[in-house]
Amino acid sequence: MIPRYTRPEMAAIWEPEQRFRIWFEIEAHACDAQAELGVIPKAAAKEVWKKGKWKVDRIDEIERETKHDVIAFLTNLAEYVGPAARFVHQGMTSSDVLDTCLNVQLVRAADLLIAGTDRVLAALKDRAFEFKLLPTIGRSHGIHAEPTTFGLKLAGFHAEFQRARKRLVAAREEVATCAISGAVGTFANVDPFVEEWVAKKLGLQPEPVSTQVIPRDRHAAYFAHLAVVASSIERLATEIRHLQRSEVMEAEEFFSPGQKGSSAMPHKRNPVLTENLTGLARLVRSAVVPALENVALWHERDISHSSVERGIGPDATIHLDFALHRLAGVVEKLVVYPDNMMKNLDRFGGLVHSQRILLALTQAGLSREDSYRLVQKHALKIWQHGGDFLQALLAEKEVTAKIKPKQLTALFDLGYHLKHVDTIFVRVFGKEGVIPKAKKAKKAAPKKKAAQKSKPKKR
Amino acid sequence: MIPRYTRPEMAAIWEPEQRFRIWFEIEAHACDAQAELGVIPKAAAKEVWKKGKWKVDRIDEIERETKHDVIAFLTNLAEYVGPAARFVHQGMTSSDVLDTCLNVQLVRAADLLIAGTDRVLAALKDRAFEFKLLPTIGRSHGIHAEPTTFGLKLAGFHAEFQRARKRLVAAREEVATCAISGAVGTFANVDPFVEEWVAKKLGLQPEPVSTQVIPRDRHAAYFAHLAVVASSIERLATEIRHLQRSEVMEAEEFFSPGQKGSSAMPHKRNPVLTENLTGLARLVRSAVVPALENVALWHERDISHSSVERGIGPDATIHLDFALHRLAGVVEKLVVYPDNMMKNLDRFGGLVHSQRILLALTQAGLSREDSYRLVQKHALKIWQHGGDFLQALLAEKEVTAKIKPKQLTALFDLGYHLKHVDTIFVRVFGKEGVIPKAKKAKKAAPKKKAAQKSKPKKR
Amino acid sequence: MIPRYTRPEMAAIWEPEQRFRIWFEIEAHACDAQAELGVIPKAAAKEVWKKGKWKVDRIDEIERETKHDVIAFLTNLAEYVGPAARFVHQGMTSSDVLDTCLNVQLVRAADLLIAGTDRVLAALKDRAFEFKLLPTIGRSHGIHAEPTTFGLKLAGFHAEFQRARKRLVAAREEVATCAISGAVGTFANVDPFVEEWVAKKLGLQPEPVSTQVIPRDRHAAYFAHLAVVASSIERLATEIRHLQRSEVMEAEEFFSPGQKGSSAMPHKRNPVLTENLTGLARLVRSAVVPALENVALWHERDISHSSVERGIGPDATIHLDFALHRLAGVVEKLVVYPDNMMKNLDRFGGLVHSQRILLALTQAGLSREDSYRLVQKHALKIWQHGGDFLQALLAEKEVTAKIKPKQLTALFDLGYHLKHVDTIFVRVFGKEGVIPKAKKAKKAAPKKKAAQKSKPKKR
Amino acid sequence: MIPRYTRPEMAAIWEPEQRFRIWFEIEAHACDAQAELGVIPKAAAKEVWKKGKWKVDRIDEIERETKHDVIAFLTNLAEYVGPAARFVHQGMTSSDVLDTCLNVQLVRAADLLIAGTDRVLAALKDRAFEFKLLPTIGRSHGIHAEPTTFGLKLAGFHAEFQRARKRLVAAREEVATCAISGAVGTFANVDPFVEEWVAKKLGLQPEPVSTQVIPRDRHAAYFAHLAVVASSIERLATEIRHLQRSEVMEAEEFFSPGQKGSSAMPHKRNPVLTENLTGLARLVRSAVVPALENVALWHERDISHSSVERGIGPDATIHLDFALHRLAGVVEKLVVYPDNMMKNLDRFGGLVHSQRILLALTQAGLSREDSYRLVQKHALKIWQHGGDFLQALLAEKEVTAKIKPKQLTALFDLGYHLKHVDTIFVRVFGKEGVIPKAKKAKKAAPKKKAAQKSKPKKR
Repeated sequence: MIPRYTRPEMAAIWEPEQRFRIWFEIEAHACDAQAELGVIPKAAAKEVWKKGKWKVDRIDEIERETKHDVIAFLTNLAEYVGPAARFVHQGMTSSDVLDTCLNVQLVRAADLLIAGTDRVLAALKDRAFEFKLLPTIGRSHGIHAEPTTFGLKLAGFHAEFQRARKRLVAAREEVATCAISGAVGTFANVDPFVEEWVAKKLGLQPEPVSTQVIPRDRHAAYFAHLAVVASSIERLATEIRHLQRSEVMEAEEFFSPGQKGSSAMPHKRNPVLTENLTGLARLVRSAVVPALENVALWHERDISHSSVERGIGPDATIHLDFALHRLAGVVEKLVVYPDNMMKNLDRFGGLVHSQRILLALTQAGLSREDSYRLVQKHALKIWQHGGDFLQALLAEKEVTAKIKPKQLTALFDLGYHLKHVDTIFVRVFGKEGVIPKAKKAKKAAPKKKAAQKSKPKKR
Repeated sequence: MIPRYTRPEMAAIWEPEQRFRIWFEIEAHACDAQAELGVIPKAAAKEVWKKGKWKVDRIDEIERETKHDVIAFLTNLAEYVGPAARFVHQGMTSSDVLDTCLNVQLVRAADLLIAGTDRVLAALKDRAFEFKLLPTIGRSHGIHAEPTTFGLKLAGFHAEFQRARKRLVAAREEVATCAISGAVGTFANVDPFVEEWVAKKLGLQPEPVSTQVIPRDRHAAYFAHLAVVASSIERLATEIRHLQRSEVMEAEEFFSPGQKGSSAMPHKRNPVLTENLTGLARLVRSAVVPALENVALWHERDISHSSVERGIGPDATIHLDFALHRLAGVVEKLVVYPDNMMKNLDRFGGLVHSQRILLALTQAGLSREDSYRLVQKHALKIWQHGGDFLQALLAEKEVTAKIKPKQLTALFDLGYHLKHVDTIFVRVFGKEGVIPKAKKAKKAAPKKKAAQKSKPKKR
Repeated sequence: MIPRYTRPEMAAIWEPEQRFRIWFEIEAHACDAQAELGVIPKAAAKEVWKKGKWKVDRIDEIERETKHDVIAFLTNLAEYVGPAARFVHQGMTSSDVLDTCLNVQLVRAADLLIAGTDRVLAALKDRAFEFKLLPTIGRSHGIHAEPTTFGLKLAGFHAEFQRARKRLVAAREEVATCAISGAVGTFANVDPFVEEWVAKKLGLQPEPVSTQVIPRDRHAAYFAHLAVVASSIERLATEIRHLQRSEVMEAEEFFSPGQKGSSAMPHKRNPVLTENLTGLARLVRSAVVPALENVALWHERDISHSSVERGIGPDATIHLDFALHRLAGVVEKLVVYPDNMMKNLDRFGGLVHSQRILLALTQAGLSREDSYRLVQKHALKIWQHGGDFLQALLAEKEVTAKIKPKQLTALFDLGYHLKHVDTIFVRVFGKEGVIPKAKKAKKAAPKKKAAQKSKPKKR
Repeated sequence: MIPRYTRPEMAAIWEPEQRFRIWFEIEAHACDAQAELGVIPKAAAKEVWKKGKWKVDRIDEIERETKHDVIAFLTNLAEYVGPAARFVHQGMTSSDVLDTCLNVQLVRAADLLIAGTDRVLAALKDRAFEFKLLPTIGRSHGIHAEPTTFGLKLAGFHAEFQRARKRLVAAREEVATCAISGAVGTFANVDPFVEEWVAKKLGLQPEPVSTQVIPRDRHAAYFAHLAVVASSIERLATEIRHLQRSEVMEAEEFFSPGQKGSSAMPHKRNPVLTENLTGLARLVRSAVVPALENVALWHERDISHSSVERGIGPDATIHLDFALHRLAGVVEKLVVYPDNMMKNLDRFGGLVHSQRILLALTQAGLSREDSYRLVQKHALKIWQHGGDFLQALLAEKEVTAKIKPKQLTALFDLGYHLKHVDTIFVRVFGKEGVIPKAKKAKKAAPKKKAAQKSKPKKR
């Protein structure tokens, strides 16, 4: 856990106070269940709920002596509960408390992560609709390919974060289990009813087979899901870092007034937030391998997983949580430069239409080979030395013999590339994806005199 | 792909012949769709299906020249299809074919992996019921804890492989998508109808937003799921390796007549299959990190993922497939030594009952501290110097003052630990988990004169 | 950083106070160099050394405003230094300070790690000589193979930790560099003399080419070295965990009086320290992948490495440092059970000598095939049903026809396996490896009546 | 191993024929040693060398029967050697052959990797000198920072690949060991002299302590070294991918005549080789984690490492070897666009000099705060709306009050940033780094009329 990459809500889940609270709830619910079964007096269970308290410092003090955290907690609890304390923890082992508690923490962490993803989704949706029809160059291999829209880029990320959300829901489900099954999981000293009761109270499912521990394939899957989400964050962060490059400058992280990009170079505004997200993604991902190595515990359990989880449990959830909110902020406030997008799109004199010309020549009866040769001849010239692709083609008799100038000009229409934006938006956002015609028309054409800089919404 | 860890069924999915077949089907289905749309003549589409052929050698020959695999394939295909070939691949890009094909391959691989897991599940179930009530020592930290049954161990693994199966189903679903959307995914030159048509024919879903490529978070999730399954294999393999240790010898990999354990030491029979599975698990897991690193492609695509997938695609699926079948074979033929289990269980003179005695003393009115002290005193003596725990307790007045000898003896009943085996079996196997009383009674007591070695079933 | 796995010496390196001290030293040394060059007044440099101070709280306060840690530090420093402060940091960039500081920290961390390894080496050497000739069974595949000595086991680990030490020295060397080269590493605003001066003062080498940052392949190599060391720790930890298994019980972690193995099962003593080391090894190793991913920064630098290093820098060094000392403690106090080793060695009636018999029969003229068949026949019988291998062979005419009973008995001599212990000890420990004859003789034979438990030395 | 990423020289090392040849040499050298010792007849050893042969097919055939590769080889060898064959492999175990052979293979692989690195180094040096004084913009965070030279960029990579070379030398040394020590490494049945002899003949060192296996920390270190080298490849590949971006276009992979960038978009030339290198780096790195997991083998050995090494041994070395040569080719033939570099450098109207102006104003007596404010005011205006920084400053009275126009103009001299190029070149290349004045002068100024495209040298 690195303080500067930590949101207090997530950190709270992992703090001792919260952990002991969960321990207490597990023990107190178990008392209720045992009372239901008649194993302990109902009055005792009530007493536990009523008088149950603990103090982190005192527990630490006892642990220094006993070197056993659960015993230290129970001892401190007994100091408050009094005689009824002897009915607490009956037939249970420490792992029943520890493993169930860890899963409660991971479930709550997943809930926060899902909420963080929802914020990212909302921001992406908002901006996707804002820029639904803003043309921009699509790039493969970092090289200009064909036009797309900035809204489509964002819609694609929205679809990816919808999957991220599903992964977090799946991660949550994996670990939403409870084990109160005794030393090797046989329920020899505690009735399965207790496990079922506590599970229900905590919103968990009983673990079908626990062997003192809850099986760690669940936790491995949990951290693997988080890692994939982290990689999606990296992809969006990388996109923004690329767009902010000096030579591209199509979008930029919001730069607050007074912020300093560089102490030495006053002109600099760096994409430091998305670079930071790239690093955080690496950190979150680093939990996967140790989590996988934690699965093959020996026999009914060994405790090698414990130190690993003390690290990756808080670290991976805290850093991912922070990253999701940082990312949401970046998207919400992203400064977009439509004019620069158009400038880049036009950079190579209309070369982005080369495929369409190629197809048109073929359809007009030229062989594919001849078409390719013709188009490439002019394309490479313009790529290297500049010029206007349309003018070059208009001056090429082999081309105009097949396609009339007016038709040729028409082939350079950007709208051709945008005709299925609605289709894709409906796939991503459902019916909402389609904006009523009137509204759409208004937005369709990038205004020539529009302010270079689209102001981010106030938030 | 390592030949000796390869089953032909899985290898076939990744062979050139199969890849070209899938390419062909994608192209031919796309022709049908284009014909439906009226973009190409229906007769042309039929011609493609009818005459479509290819030869791997010829494709290789063309690729050496063009350095482009899809073009090489299309050229060779055209040599068979004739004039109608010019209607093939219209408006599509190579990635439409390549990415859809990869997903078809991954889906088919997942199907084989699910089948492999089913074989493991069947074997585990079979043996779990066979040994449902066979008592064996449960171990935490490698140290004897309390009794469980060998069937419970196997039931726990069955529950884990049920989760493994779910993971593989989820993995399959992740990548069961199809993209035919053109150069940057805008459908500029190909109607979305074509994608929908081909997807349906191939049993896939259209990818909501592709950007020349199908987004790689899907593939990262796929390989992450496989990695978790590999770790579950490692856990079961490790269990068996432990059980086969010379000093434990509770179970053993089947050793075929004539097999040689060691050329130098004729007495050796080594758990080489499960050691091999441990290594294979490491190999399968090694696909996770590069798959995660593949997610953040630049802009609409870069091709860095491709070389990675040429490696991990076949490798991870082939090795996991092999591992599942090797594991199933190991479980099916596992040689179990009930007498050794009982010998080990009794090894420490009944110490495994120490917790129960502790609880009984507490319930009989002794303080927890005094009970612990009393039990530990005798327990440690026997742990270190041998002896019989029951006899020691019977001779201890502080104990017999609280618990009568007859009662004390009764506390050493193994049945106490087995009373919830049915509960757990029902959790894992459903109603089937409970064997009718009569049958159960017959199996309950481990027969003293049973053959040392339980013969594996013939298969 | 997990507090319970943290030694204060290592933690101190990573604390803000220490970081600021290093920053100060870098700045103050740079002032000296600039003064030498005549770029700033010598008096100013003296003033910096004399008045230079800072307060962590105040720096934090300023950083909350400026969002720039180095500027915050310099501002606070200026509050103490006064007017001369304007000569501080001249021509330098923040990274000059940050990267050089990180390397100083990593170098100091490496020094502590080397010291920790030295403690492990000392413990291993001590115990290796203590048990140099204590026979114990060697195991391959977890199966009894042939005799070795416990000292040889430990000598093997000593050799491995000698390599670990070399790796840490190499890791230290990798990062012992200094960069003071300006915004993109051209020395445009700062003379290379400053870098050379500061490097020398801090015991570093000038980084040949820095590009605002010190290249991260160095740090990747650093963490990779640490990861290999962590794996060696895991190997030794795993060995001890195996030896402490209930059925093996050849060695055991020291169990302090009053320590509780299990609250529920008073007889238990678990190898929790070595299990913990196994987990810590996983944590330390998890730094490798993100460190490798940090290498490919964009152009002259991006800042994605920074968040990663804020995590893995302290975490990997702190956990490895803790692990080395925990391991040293385990080895120093390891409780060894020679009688159990002998019991295990004899467990299979002398089968461990099967290879030697095989060789002897071959040398006596029997074909290799016949020898193998003969030996295996008796070996497998004893493996499965018990018995004494020597007696069985003495009763086998095919054997005694070739080898006389007296010779046969002589072949069961343990000494045969120990004859090269000295050779190996000399390889590992140099001349010291050989103990003078007299002393050796005294130790050679495991005393039959020796106390079961070898007391660990007082420390 | 992926055929298209495989060079035959490296593949040969891993082919069965080569492996059996190494086995033969180990066995034959061991016979010589045994003959020297008088353990076997000298004539027998000669016979082995003279008649020794094998056939891969025949070995496979025998292995199908015996399921033991070393026995199969020895059997086939015996078919050629005749009666003397019974003296082969005396006192050795299979692992002696297998582990020594693996190390021979890894050493030979390292030699090829070192040679590949040498080719990369030569190419980098060549091009570094070619572009030693070619100015280009340095970028931090993807944002223009200050000028550097293209030669400096390449020199920095040269320094990194010098370190890569050292890593490969270290990797080679790690695994250049030989073990012929018998079943558990005690030399019970084979004299250490044999190991020493064979080691010497094969150019290896005797492994100080082997325990049937050569310890796997060595191999983990080997693959870790390779992984760091792979990351350095990724860094250089990433640099080139960035430089080839449509908007940057400062350098480009060589595009052979006739090559097709895209079947659909004739204008495209994609950095596919460096993207491929990025993916290959991921593949090579993926060997690290399983190699680390291979270290903690159980007791004297388990065989879990074997399947892992059958995968990563060939894969990591073959892919890295291919990557090094592909990278060398890319650097050798890299097409560099000096005019575009200059265009980009000038893109923001001289803003790259902002730091120098800032310093000059401060030195001229303005406070740092005022200087920063002044410079930033003009810098941000030009950054956003274009313009010429020098002209803007010349028109700013607050500036000209402090710095005379002539001086101000002089501050925009590129040479200021290049003055330490020689210093850095000497650090990287030694004395050779400095080109005699005359020659340098000729190269210093980028010729205005130079061909846009610097032709790659013929090779």
